[in-house]
Amino acid sequence: MRQSLSLITLGVGDYARAKAFYEGLGWTVAMDLEETAFFPANGVVVTLWSREKLAADLGIADSGASWSGAALAHNVASREEVDQIVVQAQVLGAEVTREPSETFYGGYAAAFRDLDGHVWEIACNPGFGLSGDGSVILPEGTG
Amino acid sequence: MRQSLSLITLGVGDYARAKAFYEGLGWTVAMDLEETAFFPANGVVVTLWSREKLAADLGIADSGASWSGAALAHNVASREEVDQIVVQAQVLGAEVTREPSETFYGGYAAAFRDLDGHVWEIACNPGFGLSGDGSVILPEGTG
Repeated sequence: MRQSLSLITLGVGDYARAKAFYEGLGWTVAMDLEETAFFPANGVVVTLWSREKLAADLGIADSGASWSGAALAHNVASREEVDQIVVQAQVLGAEVTREPSETFYGGYAAAFRDLDGHVWEIACNPGFGLSGDGSVILPEGTG
Repeated sequence: MRQSLSLITLGVGDYARAKAFYEGLGWTVAMDLEETAFFPANGVVVTLWSREKLAADLGIADSGASWSGAALAHNVASREEVDQIVVQAQVLGAEVTREPSETFYGGYAAAFRDLDGHVWEIACNPGFGLSGDGSVILPEGTG
């Protein structure tokens, strides 16, 4: 299995509402097909699709749980961007679960849940490099 | 907010076991620091970290749920690769939730859950292009 992640699909309850949330954050849909929104990011494509259809398609019994142990991280170059993005998400209806604050790794981060509960950490981590497309660059020689 | 996803962190119950699973699939850790494994993929970094620490760090009350509506997709170029990867994952202890089969979009896919329940769809989608690094290329003019 190649070391790649092609898409991540976030299951949503209300498609139009979820799409508007990400558009409100400044994102642009590249493909919007049968209530499936494809947002190309840095290599990986973030996709919104009906949670009900996703569960059926994957063969998963959905108990309706709100967190199952995963988080998306969006790294930025400055603490100010962390603050700004969290305020913007909150205005759009996100629940802030971690107010912007220092992290144990010497950075600064906040976290919010989107309208369907998917968790985003917005982080400024001076230990990582940051590419122009938003990908992080891991330090050398730590493997 | 820039349209990017820097990392996805998969919370795990047993760090060594989870890391061995992904290594068994052929992945290589670039950085392994204080029981955090960083697997650089195509732009995004897939990270394994204690689910308990992740929840605490994000300010989330963890009910221990096993699925909250998201799925990772790993696209491949052929149906044979779908079959092979699913068998390999199953040998490593993954639960196959969707046996390899035709999809509604004219492709072929299977799905499994890793040892901590995180869901991977392994898909061959002839409607998308596939880059050398495993990123999909969306068709033009569908936005």
